[in-house]
Amino acid sequence: MKQSIHHLAVETSGKGLVAITRPVLAWVAAQGIATGLLTLWCRHTSASLTVQENAAPEVRDDIARYFEALVPEDARRYAHDDEGPDDMPAHLRAMLTDTHLTIPVADGRPVLGTWQGIYLFEHRRQPHRREIVLHLLGE
Amino acid sequence: MKQSIHHLAVETSGKGLVAITRPVLAWVAAQGIATGLLTLWCRHTSASLTVQENAAPEVRDDIARYFEALVPEDARRYAHDDEGPDDMPAHLRAMLTDTHLTIPVADGRPVLGTWQGIYLFEHRRQPHRREIVLHLLGE
Amino acid sequence: MKQSIHHLAVETSGKGLVAITRPVLAWVAAQGIATGLLTLWCRHTSASLTVQENAAPEVRDDIARYFEALVPEDARRYAHDDEGPDDMPAHLRAMLTDTHLTIPVADGRPVLGTWQGIYLFEHRRQPHRREIVLHLLGE
Repeated sequence: MKQSIHHLAVETSGKGLVAITRPVLAWVAAQGIATGLLTLWCRHTSASLTVQENAAPEVRDDIARYFEALVPEDARRYAHDDEGPDDMPAHLRAMLTDTHLTIPVADGRPVLGTWQGIYLFEHRRQPHRREIVLHLLGE
Repeated sequence: MKQSIHHLAVETSGKGLVAITRPVLAWVAAQGIATGLLTLWCRHTSASLTVQENAAPEVRDDIARYFEALVPEDARRYAHDDEGPDDMPAHLRAMLTDTHLTIPVADGRPVLGTWQGIYLFEHRRQPHRREIVLHLLGE
Repeated sequence: MKQSIHHLAVETSGKGLVAITRPVLAWVAAQGIATGLLTLWCRHTSASLTVQENAAPEVRDDIARYFEALVPEDARRYAHDDEGPDDMPAHLRAMLTDTHLTIPVADGRPVLGTWQGIYLFEHRRQPHRREIVLHLLGE
Protein backbone atom coordinates (compact mmCIF):
# COMPACT_ATOMS: atom_id res chain seq x y z
CA MET A 1 0.00 0.00 0.00
CA LYS A 2 1.47 3.35 -1.00
CA GLN A 3 0.41 7.00 -1.03
CA SER A 4 1.00 9.93 -3.38
CA ILE A 5 0.15 13.59 -2.96
CA HIS A 6 -0.01 16.24 -5.67
CA HIS A 7 -0.93 19.93 -5.76
CA LEU A 8 -2.97 20.82 -8.83
CA ALA A 9 -3.18 24.54 -9.69
CA VAL A 10 -6.29 25.60 -11.59
CA GLU A 11 -6.62 29.02 -13.24
CA THR A 12 -10.17 30.32 -13.30
CA SER A 13 -11.58 33.21 -15.34
CA GLY A 14 -14.39 34.30 -13.03
CA LYS A 15 -17.55 32.47 -12.00
CA GLY A 16 -18.33 29.08 -13.47
CA LEU A 17 -17.25 25.47 -13.87
CA VAL A 18 -13.72 24.55 -14.98
CA ALA A 19 -13.25 20.95 -16.12
CA ILE A 20 -10.36 19.24 -14.29
CA THR A 21 -11.09 15.60 -15.18
CA ARG A 22 -8.18 15.36 -17.61
CA PRO A 23 -5.31 16.50 -15.36
CA VAL A 24 -6.74 14.45 -12.48
CA LEU A 25 -6.95 11.25 -14.55
CA ALA A 26 -3.48 11.87 -15.99
CA TRP A 27 -1.93 12.23 -12.54
CA VAL A 28 -3.67 9.11 -11.23
CA ALA A 29 -2.55 7.10 -14.27
CA ALA A 30 1.07 8.14 -13.64
CA GLN A 31 1.07 6.77 -10.06
CA GLY A 32 0.89 3.12 -11.09
CA ILE A 33 -1.82 2.21 -8.58
CA ALA A 34 -4.36 -0.40 -9.72
CA THR A 35 -6.79 -0.35 -6.79
CA GLY A 36 -7.17 2.48 -4.33
CA LEU A 37 -8.86 5.64 -3.17
CA LEU A 38 -8.48 9.11 -4.68
CA THR A 39 -9.32 12.22 -2.65
CA LEU A 40 -9.49 15.80 -3.98
CA TRP A 41 -9.46 18.69 -1.52
CA CYS A 42 -10.20 22.30 -2.50
CA ARG A 43 -8.17 24.65 -0.28
CA HIS A 44 -10.61 27.57 -0.57
CA THR A 45 -13.96 28.68 0.84
CA SER A 46 -15.03 30.63 -2.25
CA ALA A 47 -14.48 27.88 -4.82
CA SER A 48 -15.59 24.26 -4.60
CA LEU A 49 -15.70 20.92 -6.39
CA THR A 50 -18.55 19.13 -8.11
CA VAL A 51 -19.23 16.15 -10.32
CA GLN A 52 -21.42 16.88 -13.30
CA GLU A 53 -22.59 15.89 -16.73
CA ASN A 54 -19.56 16.21 -19.01
CA ALA A 55 -21.28 16.40 -22.37
CA ALA A 56 -23.87 19.12 -22.88
CA PRO A 57 -22.41 22.65 -22.67
CA GLU A 58 -25.78 24.23 -21.81
CA VAL A 59 -25.74 22.28 -18.52
CA ARG A 60 -22.98 24.59 -17.31
CA ASP A 61 -25.01 27.70 -18.15
CA ASP A 62 -28.07 26.28 -16.41
CA ILE A 63 -25.99 25.54 -13.31
CA ALA A 64 -24.58 29.07 -13.28
CA ARG A 65 -28.05 30.59 -13.64
CA TYR A 66 -29.54 28.33 -10.96
CA PHE A 67 -26.89 29.20 -8.38
CA GLU A 68 -27.28 32.94 -9.09
CA ALA A 69 -30.93 32.56 -8.11
CA LEU A 70 -30.35 30.17 -5.18
CA VAL A 71 -27.70 32.37 -3.56
CA PRO A 72 -28.27 35.88 -4.93
CA GLU A 73 -25.62 38.60 -4.91
CA ASP A 74 -27.78 40.96 -2.94
CA ALA A 75 -25.81 43.17 -0.57
CA ARG A 76 -28.82 43.74 1.70
CA ARG A 77 -28.84 40.07 2.68
CA TYR A 78 -25.32 39.81 4.03
CA ALA A 79 -23.28 41.57 6.71
CA HIS A 80 -20.01 40.13 5.38
CA ASP A 81 -18.80 41.89 2.24
CA ASP A 82 -15.10 42.50 2.92
CA GLU A 83 -14.23 41.48 -0.60
CA GLY A 84 -17.32 42.70 -2.44
CA PRO A 85 -20.89 41.57 -3.17
CA ASP A 86 -19.75 38.16 -4.45
CA ASP A 87 -17.85 37.37 -1.22
CA MET A 88 -20.58 35.93 1.02
CA PRO A 89 -22.54 34.26 -1.84
CA ALA A 90 -19.27 32.52 -2.73
CA HIS A 91 -19.00 31.02 0.77
CA LEU A 92 -22.61 29.84 0.69
CA ARG A 93 -22.29 28.28 -2.77
CA ALA A 94 -19.18 26.46 -1.59
CA MET A 95 -21.13 25.10 1.44
CA LEU A 96 -23.91 23.80 -0.80
CA THR A 97 -21.55 21.98 -3.16
CA ASP A 98 -18.36 20.02 -2.31
CA THR A 99 -15.02 20.93 -0.77
CA HIS A 100 -13.79 17.38 -1.29
CA LEU A 101 -14.42 14.34 -3.46
CA THR A 102 -13.35 10.79 -2.64
CA ILE A 103 -13.46 8.37 -5.58
CA PRO A 104 -12.57 4.66 -5.58
CA VAL A 105 -9.91 3.66 -8.12
CA ALA A 106 -10.20 0.33 -9.95
CA ASP A 107 -8.13 -0.99 -12.87
CA GLY A 108 -5.91 2.06 -12.52
CA ARG A 109 -8.58 4.76 -12.93
CA PRO A 110 -11.24 6.52 -10.84
CA VAL A 111 -14.62 4.78 -11.22
CA LEU A 112 -16.40 7.80 -12.74
CA GLY A 113 -19.56 6.98 -14.67
CA THR A 114 -19.63 7.47 -18.43
CA TRP A 115 -21.12 10.96 -18.18
CA GLN A 116 -19.40 12.14 -15.01
CA GLY A 117 -16.81 14.90 -15.17
CA ILE A 118 -14.95 16.55 -12.26
CA TYR A 119 -15.19 20.33 -12.07
CA LEU A 120 -13.80 23.17 -10.04
CA PHE A 121 -16.65 25.58 -9.37
CA GLU A 122 -15.34 29.17 -9.16
CA HIS A 123 -17.66 31.42 -7.15
CA ARG A 124 -15.77 34.73 -7.40
CA ARG A 125 -16.14 37.22 -10.25
CA GLN A 126 -12.41 37.77 -10.65
CA PRO A 127 -10.00 35.18 -12.06
CA HIS A 128 -8.20 33.20 -9.36
CA ARG A 129 -5.46 30.63 -9.12
CA ARG A 130 -7.00 27.77 -7.13
CA GLU A 131 -5.18 24.95 -5.42
CA ILE A 132 -6.54 21.40 -5.28
CA VAL A 133 -4.71 18.75 -3.26
CA LEU A 134 -4.89 15.24 -4.74
CA HIS A 135 -4.22 12.26 -2.48
CA LEU A 136 -4.03 8.71 -3.78
CA LEU A 137 -3.76 5.63 -1.62
CA GLY A 138 -3.63 2.07 -2.91
CA GLU A 139 -1.51 -0.59 -4.50
CA MET B 1 -4.18 -3.62 5.11
CA LYS B 2 -6.44 -4.93 2.34
CA GLN B 3 -8.99 -3.52 -0.10
CA SER B 4 -12.27 -4.79 -1.55
CA ILE B 5 -14.44 -3.34 -4.30
CA HIS B 6 -18.05 -4.19 -5.07
CA HIS B 7 -20.62 -2.94 -7.57
CA LEU B 8 -24.07 -2.59 -6.04
CA ALA B 9 -26.99 -2.33 -8.48
CA VAL B 10 -30.04 -0.46 -7.21
CA GLU B 11 -33.38 -0.54 -9.00
CA THR B 12 -35.40 2.65 -8.59
CA SER B 13 -39.07 3.24 -9.34
CA GLY B 14 -38.96 6.94 -10.17
CA LYS B 15 -38.15 9.91 -7.96
CA GLY B 16 -37.46 9.38 -4.29
CA LEU B 17 -35.25 7.76 -1.67
CA VAL B 18 -34.33 4.07 -1.84
CA ALA B 19 -32.85 2.60 1.36
CA ILE B 20 -29.56 0.80 0.72
CA THR B 21 -28.25 0.48 4.29
CA ARG B 22 -28.93 -3.26 4.45
CA PRO B 23 -27.02 -4.43 1.36
CA VAL B 24 -24.18 -2.06 2.20
CA LEU B 25 -23.84 -3.35 5.77
CA ALA B 26 -24.11 -6.96 4.59
CA TRP B 27 -21.31 -6.52 2.07
CA VAL B 28 -19.06 -4.80 4.62
CA ALA B 29 -19.71 -7.56 7.18
CA ALA B 30 -18.68 -10.20 4.64
CA GLN B 31 -15.24 -8.61 4.04
CA GLY B 32 -13.87 -9.46 7.47
CA ILE B 33 -12.40 -6.02 8.10
CA ALA B 34 -12.50 -4.78 11.70
CA THR B 35 -11.18 -1.23 11.26
CA GLY B 36 -11.20 0.71 8.03
CA LEU B 37 -12.80 3.17 5.67
CA LEU B 38 -15.85 2.57 3.48
CA THR B 39 -16.50 4.74 0.40
CA LEU B 40 -19.66 4.70 -1.73
CA TRP B 41 -19.58 6.31 -5.18
CA CYS B 42 -22.70 6.95 -7.28
CA ARG B 43 -21.82 6.64 -10.99
CA HIS B 44 -24.58 8.99 -12.16
CA THR B 45 -25.31 12.72 -12.39
CA SER B 46 -29.09 12.35 -12.06
CA ALA B 47 -29.15 10.25 -8.90
CA SER B 48 -27.19 10.79 -5.70
CA LEU B 49 -26.53 9.53 -2.18
CA THR B 50 -27.67 10.86 1.17
CA VAL B 51 -27.72 9.94 4.83
CA GLN B 52 -31.05 10.43 6.51
CA GLU B 53 -33.37 9.59 9.37
CA ASN B 54 -34.21 5.90 8.98
CA ALA B 55 -37.34 5.73 11.08
CA ALA B 56 -40.19 8.09 10.21
CA PRO B 57 -41.68 7.43 6.73
CA GLU B 58 -43.10 10.95 6.43
CA VAL B 59 -39.53 12.28 6.40
CA ARG B 60 -39.12 10.85 2.91
CA ASP B 61 -42.25 12.60 1.67
CA ASP B 62 -41.13 15.89 3.18
CA ILE B 63 -37.74 15.54 1.50
CA ALA B 64 -39.38 14.84 -1.86
CA ARG B 65 -41.67 17.86 -1.52
CA TYR B 66 -38.86 20.14 -0.38
CA PHE B 67 -36.62 19.27 -3.35
CA GLU B 68 -39.50 19.76 -5.81
CA ALA B 69 -39.75 23.33 -4.50
CA LEU B 70 -36.00 23.97 -4.21
CA VAL B 71 -35.27 22.80 -7.77
CA PRO B 72 -38.54 23.09 -9.69
CA GLU B 73 -39.28 21.21 -12.89
CA ASP B 74 -39.94 24.38 -14.81
CA ALA B 75 -38.88 24.18 -18.46
CA ARG B 76 -38.54 27.97 -18.75
CA ARG B 77 -35.65 27.95 -16.30
CA TYR B 78 -33.36 25.56 -18.13
CA ALA B 79 -31.78 25.40 -21.59
CA HIS B 80 -30.82 21.72 -21.14
CA ASP B 81 -33.77 19.38 -21.54
CA ASP B 82 -32.42 16.63 -23.81
CA GLU B 83 -34.11 13.98 -21.71
CA GLY B 84 -37.19 15.89 -20.58
CA PRO B 85 -38.22 18.43 -17.94
CA ASP B 86 -36.75 16.33 -15.10
CA ASP B 87 -33.29 16.22 -16.74
CA MET B 88 -31.69 19.48 -15.57
CA PRO B 89 -33.42 19.51 -12.13
CA ALA B 90 -31.97 16.01 -11.63
CA HIS B 91 -28.42 17.31 -12.19
CA LEU B 92 -28.96 20.21 -9.79
CA ARG B 93 -30.45 18.00 -7.07
CA ALA B 94 -27.47 15.67 -7.42
CA MET B 95 -25.10 18.64 -6.98
CA LEU B 96 -26.87 19.75 -3.81
CA THR B 97 -26.74 16.30 -2.20
CA ASP B 98 -23.89 13.71 -2.31
CA THR B 99 -22.21 11.77 -5.09
CA HIS B 100 -20.05 9.97 -2.52
CA LEU B 101 -20.03 9.01 1.14
CA THR B 102 -16.97 7.99 3.14
CA ILE B 103 -17.70 6.29 6.47
CA PRO B 104 -15.19 5.02 9.03
CA VAL B 105 -15.58 1.33 9.96
CA ALA B 106 -15.03 0.21 13.56
CA ASP B 107 -15.70 -3.19 15.14
CA GLY B 108 -16.52 -4.50 11.67
CA ARG B 109 -19.29 -2.04 10.82
CA PRO B 110 -19.70 1.51 9.50
CA VAL B 111 -20.07 3.98 12.41
CA LEU B 112 -23.56 5.16 11.42
CA GLY B 113 -25.52 6.80 14.23
CA THR B 114 -28.60 5.04 15.62
CA TRP B 115 -30.99 6.92 13.34
CA GLN B 116 -28.81 7.19 10.26
CA GLY B 117 -29.73 5.29 7.13
CA ILE B 118 -27.97 5.36 3.73
CA TYR B 119 -30.17 6.19 0.73
CA LEU B 120 -29.92 6.39 -3.01
CA PHE B 121 -31.81 9.52 -4.10
CA GLU B 122 -33.36 8.98 -7.55
CA HIS B 123 -34.02 12.28 -9.34
CA ARG B 124 -35.56 11.00 -12.60
CA ARG B 125 -39.26 10.23 -13.08
CA GLN B 126 -38.64 6.92 -14.82
CA PRO B 127 -37.33 3.79 -13.08
CA HIS B 128 -33.58 3.32 -13.49
CA ARG B 129 -30.96 0.75 -12.65
CA ARG B 130 -28.30 2.66 -10.71
CA GLU B 131 -24.77 1.56 -10.00
CA ILE B 132 -22.99 2.30 -6.74
CA VAL B 133 -19.33 1.38 -6.31
CA LEU B 134 -18.37 0.31 -2.77
CA HIS B 135 -14.72 0.45 -1.74
CA LEU B 136 -13.49 -0.85 1.61
CA LEU B 137 -9.98 -0.43 2.92
CA GLY B 138 -8.75 -1.67 6.29
CA GLU B 139 -7.63 -4.66 8.28
CA MET C 1 0.33 2.00 7.24
CA LYS C 2 -1.66 2.38 10.45
CA GLN C 3 -5.12 3.54 11.51
CA SER C 4 -6.50 5.46 14.49
CA ILE C 5 -10.10 6.15 15.49
CA HIS C 6 -11.33 8.74 17.97
CA HIS C 7 -14.76 9.88 19.17
CA LEU C 8 -14.97 13.64 19.56
CA ALA C 9 -17.88 14.95 21.65
CA VAL C 10 -19.06 18.47 20.80
CA GLU C 11 -21.43 20.44 23.04
CA THR C 12 -23.69 22.80 21.12
CA SER C 13 -25.81 25.66 22.47
CA GLY C 14 -28.58 25.65 19.88
CA LYS C 15 -28.47 26.47 16.18
CA GLY C 16 -25.25 27.62 14.61
CA LEU C 17 -21.65 26.81 13.78
CA VAL C 18 -19.25 25.45 16.41
CA ALA C 19 -15.55 25.56 15.50
CA ILE C 20 -13.86 22.16 15.91
CA THR C 21 -10.64 22.78 13.97
CA ARG C 22 -8.51 22.93 17.11
CA PRO C 23 -9.43 19.61 18.74
CA VAL C 24 -9.30 17.89 15.33
CA LEU C 25 -5.80 19.21 14.55
CA ALA C 26 -4.61 18.36 18.07
CA TRP C 27 -5.80 14.76 17.78
CA VAL C 28 -4.21 14.34 14.33
CA ALA C 29 -0.90 15.80 15.57
CA ALA C 30 -0.85 13.28 18.44
CA GLN C 31 -1.12 10.26 16.10
CA GLY C 32 2.37 10.66 14.64
CA ILE C 33 1.26 10.20 11.03
CA ALA C 34 3.10 12.25 8.41
CA THR C 35 1.10 11.40 5.28
CA GLY C 36 -2.43 10.07 5.25
CA LEU C 37 -6.15 10.61 5.05
CA LEU C 38 -8.40 12.05 7.77
CA THR C 39 -12.15 11.38 7.75
CA LEU C 40 -14.74 13.01 10.03
CA TRP C 41 -18.19 11.45 10.33
CA CYS C 42 -21.13 13.17 12.05
CA ARG C 43 -23.37 10.53 13.68
CA HIS C 44 -26.54 12.63 13.47
CA THR C 45 -29.17 13.65 10.93
CA SER C 46 -29.95 17.00 12.57
CA ALA C 47 -26.39 18.33 12.78
CA SER C 48 -23.74 18.33 10.07
CA LEU C 49 -20.20 19.33 9.17
CA THR C 50 -18.93 22.15 7.01
CA VAL C 51 -15.72 23.90 6.05
CA GLN C 52 -15.88 27.66 6.19
CA GLU C 53 -14.05 30.94 6.46
CA ASN C 54 -12.41 30.96 9.88
CA ALA C 55 -11.80 34.67 10.29
CA ALA C 56 -14.77 37.00 9.99
CA PRO C 57 -17.41 36.46 12.72
CA GLU C 58 -20.22 37.99 10.62
CA VAL C 59 -19.85 35.10 8.16
CA ARG C 60 -21.41 32.82 10.77
CA ASP C 61 -24.39 35.13 11.21
CA ASP C 62 -24.88 35.37 7.44
CA ILE C 63 -24.79 31.59 7.17
CA ALA C 64 -27.37 31.22 9.93
CA ARG C 65 -29.66 33.77 8.31
CA TYR C 66 -29.29 32.24 4.85
CA PHE C 67 -30.19 28.74 6.03
CA GLU C 68 -33.23 30.05 7.93
CA ALA C 69 -34.50 31.41 4.61
CA LEU C 70 -33.43 28.42 2.48
CA VAL C 71 -35.09 25.86 4.76
CA PRO C 72 -37.75 27.76 6.74
CA GLU C 73 -39.19 26.55 10.01
CA ASP C 74 -42.72 26.60 8.68
CA ALA C 75 -44.91 23.84 10.11
CA ARG C 76 -47.28 23.93 7.13
CA ARG C 77 -44.55 22.66 4.84
CA TYR C 78 -43.69 19.46 6.66
CA ALA C 79 -45.60 16.38 7.79
CA HIS C 80 -42.76 15.26 10.08
CA ASP C 81 -42.64 17.27 13.31
CA ASP C 82 -42.20 14.62 15.99
CA GLU C 83 -39.63 16.73 17.78
CA GLY C 84 -40.96 20.20 16.99
CA PRO C 85 -40.88 22.74 14.14
CA ASP C 86 -37.07 22.60 13.89
CA ASP C 87 -37.08 18.81 13.36
CA MET C 88 -37.62 18.48 9.61
CA PRO C 89 -35.69 21.67 8.67
CA ALA C 90 -32.77 20.19 10.62
CA HIS C 91 -32.80 17.05 8.45
CA LEU C 92 -32.94 19.10 5.25
CA ARG C 93 -30.12 21.43 6.31
CA ALA C 94 -28.01 18.39 7.13
CA MET C 95 -28.70 16.97 3.63
CA LEU C 96 -27.61 20.22 1.98
CA THR C 97 -24.33 20.42 3.90
CA ASP C 98 -21.94 17.57 4.86
CA THR C 99 -22.24 14.50 7.03
CA HIS C 100 -18.58 13.68 6.40
CA LEU C 101 -15.33 15.35 5.44
CA THR C 102 -12.24 13.58 4.09
CA ILE C 103 -9.04 15.63 4.17
CA PRO C 104 -5.57 14.60 2.97
CA VAL C 105 -2.83 14.86 5.61
CA ALA C 106 0.66 16.03 4.59
CA ASP C 107 3.62 16.92 6.82
CA GLY C 108 1.59 15.73 9.80
CA ARG C 109 -1.41 18.02 9.35
CA PRO C 110 -4.64 18.19 7.32
CA VAL C 111 -4.11 20.28 4.17
CA LEU C 112 -6.67 22.96 5.09
CA GLY C 113 -6.25 26.26 3.26
CA THR C 114 -5.19 29.34 5.22
CA TRP C 115 -8.76 30.51 5.75
CA GLN C 116 -10.48 27.14 6.11
CA GLY C 117 -11.93 26.10 9.45
CA ILE C 118 -13.87 22.92 10.27
CA TYR C 119 -17.27 23.45 11.87
CA LEU C 120 -20.05 21.39 13.37
CA PHE C 121 -23.33 22.90 12.17
CA GLU C 122 -26.05 22.44 14.82
CA HIS C 123 -29.54 22.56 13.32
CA ARG C 124 -31.67 22.09 16.47
CA ARG C 125 -32.77 24.91 18.75
CA GLN C 126 -31.85 23.07 21.95
CA PRO C 127 -28.29 22.37 23.09
CA HIS C 128 -27.07 18.88 22.16
CA ARG C 129 -24.05 16.71 22.77
CA ARG C 130 -22.91 15.67 19.27
CA GLU C 131 -20.57 12.84 18.40
CA ILE C 132 -18.05 13.05 15.57
CA VAL C 133 -15.98 9.99 14.65
CA LEU C 134 -12.45 10.78 13.47
CA HIS C 135 -10.57 8.20 11.42
CA LEU C 136 -6.94 8.62 10.40
CA LEU C 137 -5.08 6.33 8.06
CA GLY C 138 -1.48 6.77 6.98
CA GLU C 139 2.13 6.40 7.94
